[in-house]
Amino acid sequence: MNQDDLFKKVIAHAKEYGFIFPSSEIYDGLSAVYDYGQNGVELKKNLREYWWKAMVQMHENIVGLDAAIFMHPTTWKASGHVDAFNDPLIDNKDSKKRYRADVLIEDYAEKQRQKAEKEIEKAKKRFGEDFDEALYRETNPRVKKYLDEANDTVKRMAASLDAGDLADVKSLIEEKGIVCPISGSKNWTEVRQFNLMFGTQMGSVAEGASTLYLRPETAQGIFVNFLNVQKTGRMKIPFGIAQTGKAFRNEIVARQFIFRMREFEQMEMQYFVRPGEEMKWYKYWKEERMKWHRALGMDDSYYRFHDHEKLAHYANAAADIEFNFPFGFKELEGIHSRTDFDLKAHEEHSGKKLQFFDPELGQNYVPYVVETSIGLDRLFLAVLSYAYREESLEDGSSRTVLRIPAPLAPVKAAILPLIKRDGLPEISREILDELRYDFNIQYDEKDAIGKRYRRHDAIGTPYCITVDHETKEDKCVTLRDRDSMTQERVPIQNLKAKLSESLSLSSLLKK
Amino acid sequence: MNQDDLFKKVIAHAKEYGFIFPSSEIYDGLSAVYDYGQNGVELKKNLREYWWKAMVQMHENIVGLDAAIFMHPTTWKASGHVDAFNDPLIDNKDSKKRYRADVLIEDYAEKQRQKAEKEIEKAKKRFGEDFDEALYRETNPRVKKYLDEANDTVKRMAASLDAGDLADVKSLIEEKGIVCPISGSKNWTEVRQFNLMFGTQMGSVAEGASTLYLRPETAQGIFVNFLNVQKTGRMKIPFGIAQTGKAFRNEIVARQFIFRMREFEQMEMQYFVRPGEEMKWYKYWKEERMKWHRALGMDDSYYRFHDHEKLAHYANAAADIEFNFPFGFKELEGIHSRTDFDLKAHEEHSGKKLQFFDPELGQNYVPYVVETSIGLDRLFLAVLSYAYREESLEDGSSRTVLRIPAPLAPVKAAILPLIKRDGLPEISREILDELRYDFNIQYDEKDAIGKRYRRHDAIGTPYCITVDHETKEDKCVTLRDRDSMTQERVPIQNLKAKLSESLSLSSLLKK
Repeated sequence: MNQDDLFKKVIAHAKEYGFIFPSSEIYDGLSAVYDYGQNGVELKKNLREYWWKAMVQMHENIVGLDAAIFMHPTTWKASGHVDAFNDPLIDNKDSKKRYRADVLIEDYAEKQRQKAEKEIEKAKKRFGEDFDEALYRETNPRVKKYLDEANDTVKRMAASLDAGDLADVKSLIEEKGIVCPISGSKNWTEVRQFNLMFGTQMGSVAEGASTLYLRPETAQGIFVNFLNVQKTGRMKIPFGIAQTGKAFRNEIVARQFIFRMREFEQMEMQYFVRPGEEMKWYKYWKEERMKWHRALGMDDSYYRFHDHEKLAHYANAAADIEFNFPFGFKELEGIHSRTDFDLKAHEEHSGKKLQFFDPELGQNYVPYVVETSIGLDRLFLAVLSYAYREESLEDGSSRTVLRIPAPLAPVKAAILPLIKRDGLPEISREILDELRYDFNIQYDEKDAIGKRYRRHDAIGTPYCITVDHETKEDKCVTLRDRDSMTQERVPIQNLKAKLSESLSLSSLLKK
Repeated sequence: MNQDDLFKKVIAHAKEYGFIFPSSEIYDGLSAVYDYGQNGVELKKNLREYWWKAMVQMHENIVGLDAAIFMHPTTWKASGHVDAFNDPLIDNKDSKKRYRADVLIEDYAEKQRQKAEKEIEKAKKRFGEDFDEALYRETNPRVKKYLDEANDTVKRMAASLDAGDLADVKSLIEEKGIVCPISGSKNWTEVRQFNLMFGTQMGSVAEGASTLYLRPETAQGIFVNFLNVQKTGRMKIPFGIAQTGKAFRNEIVARQFIFRMREFEQMEMQYFVRPGEEMKWYKYWKEERMKWHRALGMDDSYYRFHDHEKLAHYANAAADIEFNFPFGFKELEGIHSRTDFDLKAHEEHSGKKLQFFDPELGQNYVPYVVETSIGLDRLFLAVLSYAYREESLEDGSSRTVLRIPAPLAPVKAAILPLIKRDGLPEISREILDELRYDFNIQYDEKDAIGKRYRRHDAIGTPYCITVDHETKEDKCVTLRDRDSMTQERVPIQNLKAKLSESLSLSSLLKK
């Protein structure tokens, strides 16, 4: 299956099986906002819980926090978001459509690169086996022209944006003859900076109302509470504060399903360390976080590190853990060495000291921070798209199955009476009543057994427990495994222990 | 301890022990917004999980949902929030302060009632044992005058607000001579309606931007997804959809700590039923929800039902479960028979049918809805304030202890080596490594053992596990119970089973 097809199928499957619905769909949806359905909410909860247990419960020196979405507006002045969290926008006067100027320019550069690739493909066909691609790429004048044009354009744009020279960004668009994809015209407005934070008014509209922002990242909730947690929790450096919660960004170009949404959920941990020791911990957390991802059992080749060359103003080292999404390798998690930028900025803006007294060193300092930051919705998309399989079976039929890691599956087991009479439903319900305290279990008596298996394959239920006439005699049930489709006979009294073994989050945490 | 003192102590304790911090405290806080600290976040998570398991996991016909905070703006037109979710506000022209007109008037009425009570107190002292309070209350002209004045005023205000006659609300304030508590003046503006929803702009500021609202209740996310869930989950009526999530209300007068916040979390379940059967289910859910609260083991006398006489425009029956907070009995949860008001309104505004085909009746209908709606923050406050105790001990000392229901406690057990050497820390850490997969456990080796017990009493840790020199010989530890303070010797290998029994949520769910 090609990757575009896979992505379309995953999106359709997510809707059809209650994982993800477009938000407010009866009102024709709300762009770049999605709702999690009855199965999606369970998978999302389980992913969040896996992260929480791994970060908080398994680390003696990491504790949790749940800061509000609303924060004092000065927070965002201190963090730099009020002044610098912008996208450069430009309008086409004919189509009245608005674009991100940098995206227009990057699209232009991408087209040049595609032209170069086309030349190379042609040459490959022409020269056959003897073709030296690397050499051709560097020496062929047409190829070189396209690639240079792409690189030079992006470089100039980056320099202009860095210097705040928006007029030159506009000149670049004009010089390159970039047209509006809708109107086809070059009739552009000036480029202006547009802040990505959602604003709202607290209090009533007259005097006394103040502009609040919906937080664009959860991290600042941790920074402003740093001393509260350190003191009341008697924490000693190094220590971490972990948090999950919603964040909001007013993206102009939001796309790729739940990969880039206007409302999304972050899972962030800020690790406070001694100044000078941040690189040690930065490396530690890169490895730790990669280990966590790999414990999910998805193929190692789906992950890679991407070390940032260009660093944000607050960082002295940064890397992404990228995942091979259906649309290619993209950021799944970021690990950032944020220095003391944030705490120092909050000291300045609040006039309060945000320091730690280190008893070993006998001195006060503003700690350095190493951050791990993962998008829960992206993690959901990674797991869902990797799990999606269309399989041909030996009998010539086929099935769609979600190979979700068993401890994360929305429904852990389905209890299926072979037929709807002869006391089988009653026995099934007894088993259900026994297991439901520990697992999310579904009871399903409708349709032929094969159809019920398919239904549970499609939502990723790891086990089907079938109750048949034999069960009355031998007090055993048939346990069918989602992935191997093998069936084994298991005594009812062993069911709970058997399921616990492979379905508890501990099995992931122990990896 | 009197109730005012209790409330102050609970608030101070919540901050000192990492349960609740004022939001953005380093910036002097944000009114009516709070952050949950390292212990608060765990208690909140456990309460949420208890609700989720009880509603979703334990009910075959209830499934979950996680709809976004952002919804299509027409949602709030349909629900009536755009037109009717208002508070009547009035400004004092001298102090420039803004008030809720209804609160000013209610405060005036309350003062009249207090005057009556004062008269009664005086008479009680004067007449001693012979005093017939009920008779005096009805016959004494001064008392009667004050009480009549209070009742008449509130009645007239209610009638004027119902009729939308804001001019009369202002007249009432003037006639009663109500003054601004700051300026002392009667120089009032007109009364105007002020909508309680927070608005924000999606998209960029120019054309194309649309006003969104932060949802003021989570329920509408369930209604607009009703058919998506019903169809993809193959649900049959009656069935329920449960959801937890943030909601936002721009309260002008927010107070009582986390009881009434501008940002808060709801746990709502909408139960879809056949028209005509709603009263049966309304009664069912009133009882079910009360049972759920009582399973927490707080005294029955702390709960009461309050049946609404005046019903919201969408309801044909409504009741609150009230809890005896430190500031008196107040709403903790609402159970509402919402009829088909919401689904019908969404049908009208969206032009889409929101009906269920009932195979037994052979007909389509818009289901009726019974809702259970509880504030997670209020539940947190109920549990925390009930749990807070100052106890005198036999040895003449005292302790502060949080008697939080054990399965909900932030930290489930503390592992304490009696001293910091002789291999006791090592044995303690081995036990920690064994238990931490299943429970949130803390290791604590600092200070004398008695001090460590007090520390864990103060955050409500149900068990302290002490490792002493004997442990090396008998492979046993001392297990100390938070509430009874009794200690027993328990083999290390039995610890996990012993803790599971009393600490798992199942023990609450089975009640």
